[in-house]
Amino acid sequence: MNALESVDQYLTEHAERNVEQLKDFLRIASVSADSAFAAEMTKAAEFVRAQMVDAGLNVEVVETAGFPIVYGSRMVSEDVPTVLVYGHYDVQPPDPLEDWITPAFDPHVRDGNLYARGATDNKGQLYTHLKSIEAWTKTQDAPPVNVKVIIEGEEEVGSNNLDDFLETRKEDLSADVAVVSDTSQYGPGMPAITYGLRGIMACEVTLRGPKQDLHSGVFGGAIANPVNALAKMVGALVDENGRVTIPGFYDGVIPLTDGERKQFANLPFDEASFLEKIGVQETFGEQGFTTLERRWARPTCEINGFYGGYQGEGPKTIIPSFATAKITCRLVPDQNPKSVAAALKSHLESLCPAGVVLEFTDQHGGNGMVVDMSGPFAAAASRAIDDAFGTPPVLIREGGSIPVVASFREILGIDTLLLGWGQNTDNLHSPNEHFNLLDFHRGTRASAHLLHYLAEK
Amino acid sequence: MNALESVDQYLTEHAERNVEQLKDFLRIASVSADSAFAAEMTKAAEFVRAQMVDAGLNVEVVETAGFPIVYGSRMVSEDVPTVLVYGHYDVQPPDPLEDWITPAFDPHVRDGNLYARGATDNKGQLYTHLKSIEAWTKTQDAPPVNVKVIIEGEEEVGSNNLDDFLETRKEDLSADVAVVSDTSQYGPGMPAITYGLRGIMACEVTLRGPKQDLHSGVFGGAIANPVNALAKMVGALVDENGRVTIPGFYDGVIPLTDGERKQFANLPFDEASFLEKIGVQETFGEQGFTTLERRWARPTCEINGFYGGYQGEGPKTIIPSFATAKITCRLVPDQNPKSVAAALKSHLESLCPAGVVLEFTDQHGGNGMVVDMSGPFAAAASRAIDDAFGTPPVLIREGGSIPVVASFREILGIDTLLLGWGQNTDNLHSPNEHFNLLDFHRGTRASAHLLHYLAEK
Repeated sequence: MNALESVDQYLTEHAERNVEQLKDFLRIASVSADSAFAAEMTKAAEFVRAQMVDAGLNVEVVETAGFPIVYGSRMVSEDVPTVLVYGHYDVQPPDPLEDWITPAFDPHVRDGNLYARGATDNKGQLYTHLKSIEAWTKTQDAPPVNVKVIIEGEEEVGSNNLDDFLETRKEDLSADVAVVSDTSQYGPGMPAITYGLRGIMACEVTLRGPKQDLHSGVFGGAIANPVNALAKMVGALVDENGRVTIPGFYDGVIPLTDGERKQFANLPFDEASFLEKIGVQETFGEQGFTTLERRWARPTCEINGFYGGYQGEGPKTIIPSFATAKITCRLVPDQNPKSVAAALKSHLESLCPAGVVLEFTDQHGGNGMVVDMSGPFAAAASRAIDDAFGTPPVLIREGGSIPVVASFREILGIDTLLLGWGQNTDNLHSPNEHFNLLDFHRGTRASAHLLHYLAEK
Repeated sequence: MNALESVDQYLTEHAERNVEQLKDFLRIASVSADSAFAAEMTKAAEFVRAQMVDAGLNVEVVETAGFPIVYGSRMVSEDVPTVLVYGHYDVQPPDPLEDWITPAFDPHVRDGNLYARGATDNKGQLYTHLKSIEAWTKTQDAPPVNVKVIIEGEEEVGSNNLDDFLETRKEDLSADVAVVSDTSQYGPGMPAITYGLRGIMACEVTLRGPKQDLHSGVFGGAIANPVNALAKMVGALVDENGRVTIPGFYDGVIPLTDGERKQFANLPFDEASFLEKIGVQETFGEQGFTTLERRWARPTCEINGFYGGYQGEGPKTIIPSFATAKITCRLVPDQNPKSVAAALKSHLESLCPAGVVLEFTDQHGGNGMVVDMSGPFAAAASRAIDDAFGTPPVLIREGGSIPVVASFREILGIDTLLLGWGQNTDNLHSPNEHFNLLDFHRGTRASAHLLHYLAEK
């Protein structure tokens, strides 16, 4: 029996125990958003610490300005790669409580699914990696690669203290690749590697007109109305064909390759049920692209909020004194958030009529990213998933940003393999969150095989 | 001494007494907006009743669902015209009290101005007509025309019961022309007849997209964003040249005559101080028209309020589920509010992109109006003002609507002469409201002469 076979056997023998331990983890109500649960947060961090020790890691509980980060590592050799695993032990609030079939913090198995807050997001998924490392340690005395594991307690409240930790411990945390299981499979039986994320540029623009709201009868027609003016300016940012009109906006965009477009086209995607779920009749987007391409790999310009003037019932005959629009652009490689913000600002300035004053606030930005899937780390993940799930992963991108991925790239200089074991129907952030136990076990096995194939590099 | 000379002499002899009586009227704190002042409202109605009796009118105090309407009339002959005078005995709340130099309901004269809440708006101005009728009655036994006088108590709170009274008493109230002194002179020493008002069309438009706010990363690019879409639609309603783009919008507009444009151009108008007062750097409006023309005699399309999506601090990455715009168009003769609303609705429908649903609510409308200044009533008013103020009136229009004028036209079928004796610097609705006593006496004399010249018709 070779090493991998021993690890597999260990996981098979400990499958039931792993579920029972995960249930213990899920009984801890580690809600980071609500200070009433602070004691549970401490318990959860302690639980993770103990599990890491069992897995053979050297563990520190690192205090932060918020909840502690549990950090474990095991260095086996300078000749093998180092993999950095990330997860979070905090969970979303369980409300509304009355919608849970069994209580949020009293785990139950029904139809092969384990129900509890955090079952998938992220206790269940992070646990696959702890158990895979443990299997290597118990059977082979050590994992086949160097491992570093960061499990934080503030992901659901913005990971406010994570970057600080990464910066401070930059040297200790050096690694070759990161692994995060906080995404989903593409669908049941369709494990996925998420190899691309969109970036973002966020800003706010305010037009100021008269120093106070004015009577629209007395003044109307003689001065610029900031709401009319701002609506015209920001309303023109996307044209009838769904194209963003900011000059130079598409300059940095790396076009989708024919291969990617073929991959996306081969994914099953039921547009009718997609639309029905969100209550929309028809899609609208950039002409020449499919819905998946538009969501995953094309940049956008969305007004997230707009306000100005009277918001109450009925009419009020005023010229409002100001109007504000909150705008975010989702970006794709290699668009630069700062350049996009600058281009938007100067475009808006060029559109701004006489008699109103423009204020532009650049709020934050992040680059889009695409991991090169032809490299050895992606190949290792692919083989590991194929072993565990019986099918190679589909390659997908996501339309959102995952801040920790950006931090790993910016602070530690490494790419992240986003390997989701759950389903996007697992009710993350909703009542009756669950995790299919077959997926849990497959994920654990895939993690173990990943360590093996990474060592082969 | 002819009749007019006797009336003038009576007014001169009673000038001081008239001021003292007006002070008594101003001591009554008839604030219609605040139920704490209900007893004062009754006192004010009684004061008006007694004054009308003194002036020789047959008086009724008409109860309404709100505060009473005091109605007096004196029919002298079927061979002379009937003039309907309107005013209101209620006043604005006096707050902020601490800003008054002398108390709001303790009238004081300083520098020839009478200070008190209601001094101009409208107790002082309406009183000129009561005193002019009294002078005719005391000296000539009767006014030279038939007079009907409506003094209501709810103008400052929306005149909610006035239309009902006009409808119910339509026959009794039949008249040839109405006279209302609830506007201002154009400036000191520049008495004015306001011969035009703008109308209005008010509506609300909502675009509905997804059934709830969606994650702009996951969905952005694939569906229409209701805020982007509504901003584009309503932002396009006024073009870069200040022209409204609704098809057919200008069809009903009666162009300004060369004579009117010349009149407006001859009025002193300090654009710099106009802009400074409202805190705006530059005018913006329909090309080819002056600021006064734009405000008084050209239609507009203003967004009075716009809201959709996130309104709090910082960014929020959502596609909002809906967006709403509140829109009013100021109209000029002969634009029809219903036609404009219909044109706007179908224009917006034509602009509405796929994937959002448009809801249009038509809220209310009113016609613009222009009184024919070549007729005998206007000529009479002009002569009367010239006699009393020593200069003929300038002819002006106003950009707003005065609901009672619309009611008189719609219910009673008569035009209104808007004869303002006060100044727009008299602090109407503000602390230290005042009325120049020279203007008060001139207004009373103008009213008396108006009755005389109307009889000459």
